[in-house]
Amino acid sequence: MSFQPRNPDFEARVRASFARQRAMGLIGARMTRVEPGHVDIELATRDDLGQQHGFVHGGVVGMIADSAGGYAAFTLMPADASVLTVEYKVNMLAPAQGELLIARGEVLKPGRSLTVVRADVWARSGGEDTRVAAMQQTLMVMHGMPDERI
Amino acid sequence: MSFQPRNPDFEARVRASFARQRAMGLIGARMTRVEPGHVDIELATRDDLGQQHGFVHGGVVGMIADSAGGYAAFTLMPADASVLTVEYKVNMLAPAQGELLIARGEVLKPGRSLTVVRADVWARSGGEDTRVAAMQQTLMVMHGMPDERI
Amino acid sequence: MSFQPRNPDFEARVRASFARQRAMGLIGARMTRVEPGHVDIELATRDDLGQQHGFVHGGVVGMIADSAGGYAAFTLMPADASVLTVEYKVNMLAPAQGELLIARGEVLKPGRSLTVVRADVWARSGGEDTRVAAMQQTLMVMHGMPDERI
Amino acid sequence: MSFQPRNPDFEARVRASFARQRAMGLIGARMTRVEPGHVDIELATRDDLGQQHGFVHGGVVGMIADSAGGYAAFTLMPADASVLTVEYKVNMLAPAQGELLIARGEVLKPGRSLTVVRADVWARSGGEDTRVAAMQQTLMVMHGMPDERI
Repeated sequence: MSFQPRNPDFEARVRASFARQRAMGLIGARMTRVEPGHVDIELATRDDLGQQHGFVHGGVVGMIADSAGGYAAFTLMPADASVLTVEYKVNMLAPAQGELLIARGEVLKPGRSLTVVRADVWARSGGEDTRVAAMQQTLMVMHGMPDERI
Repeated sequence: MSFQPRNPDFEARVRASFARQRAMGLIGARMTRVEPGHVDIELATRDDLGQQHGFVHGGVVGMIADSAGGYAAFTLMPADASVLTVEYKVNMLAPAQGELLIARGEVLKPGRSLTVVRADVWARSGGEDTRVAAMQQTLMVMHGMPDERI
Repeated sequence: MSFQPRNPDFEARVRASFARQRAMGLIGARMTRVEPGHVDIELATRDDLGQQHGFVHGGVVGMIADSAGGYAAFTLMPADASVLTVEYKVNMLAPAQGELLIARGEVLKPGRSLTVVRADVWARSGGEDTRVAAMQQTLMVMHGMPDERI
Repeated sequence: MSFQPRNPDFEARVRASFARQRAMGLIGARMTRVEPGHVDIELATRDDLGQQHGFVHGGVVGMIADSAGGYAAFTLMPADASVLTVEYKVNMLAPAQGELLIARGEVLKPGRSLTVVRADVWARSGGEDTRVAAMQQTLMVMHGMPDERI
């Protein structure tokens, strides 16, 4: 789908907000693609992100899906607003293993107060991508609360 | 609700599995209560767990809820099984702030192949607890795959 | 939990709104308990509500859970507002069979714009109740849109 | 995505099973498209399917999404299996109004024991289609329990 951003500076704003998410720094996540209604977040797998069997922890997979989805929604919000996760639901489809995880967030329905997003997480292993998680998420537009000033 | 564990060593087994979840170590989460069908996980808040406004990242809140729920399910599984998260859905109810987060997982319906769990996350601030997230989760019993050997 | 309704006439209002839900009439659902933050809806099982194996259709179970949860939220809303379902997630725990289904909606967190609710559905068979579904739901408060005038 | 059905008679089988869902008959739903991994269900809107504001009840929207998703999963299951809904999560995106609702179920990840599906519901009004709901769902394969004999 193609969306028209309401804030021409959306990309700089999204990247600046992501840079303030220290939890993303802790796990080593990087924001790559930022387009109207679409955001990708990549995460190089590391041993200290694992669950009991050595795959990436499902909660970490949920974290990057949550951020990719939230920022996909944020690309379409006006300059005086910030974004809040209302809820998300994520299905784990396959073990999260390989060299790299890529969370791709995509807006399904932007709205004045609520935005609905889907985000899938892919694992790259030996150049091949496997979908390892599928998320559906609801975000709230917080009008009059610019992200930078909260 | 009161449950009868099928593995008398459930507590040692749950704690040993949790200790192998390196992602829990990365964020500093500790397993406190382990009872049949119930597990609590605590997380001292830290700046490097934050989202863009300084509250604990929703994905981190989801991580400890996922682990508390998954291990609550695991307390009731037989010795030759391991546990797998099928999916979870989490609502964020209030900003995750304060000194400590406590995720309380509780089995709603144990089953031969699937177990359904609810987990709530509470934030403790100045001695007062506020519910900050509510999760509902589906777990799979992986028979014939003891957790220690995968 | 105990809640304080903002509209003293909440019960009459909730029952009147439910009476306008013709889909509830079609399946034969009745609203029984209405208290601040709590609503019960009962459904006598019938052959024409079945799925392919003769149990009550999961979608019908979801319908009464959705209505019980939505009206539990509505009990706490001001007189000039109406309620809208944002989303719900429901786990099916056991086949919906027996004489009667009872959906019990209970508010978890009321809010100015969003309310989060849990609703469980129980099946009564020979005087015994079994939990057959567990739902978690998000509702929106539509301020300035009284339910009666939309 | 393109899928290979394991039962060459999948279409006849899916249509026969749907014909046994009496709840679908009650609301007037019809199964239209049946392809490997894809099923469409259509519902002509009627006054007796309404909620309090005259739109189609969210629970009815959930019902056809649940059936479309469940049967999309069932197209890929072996002949000796039946399908069971584990859980679904549905976001309401817009009021369900117009002449016709179309629920389109599509398999995301088929599996030996679990299948994950997405289903969207569209409302047709004056020849134009609007997405009114988005669902994500988990189904269980019940091996050794042919749908016809349960």
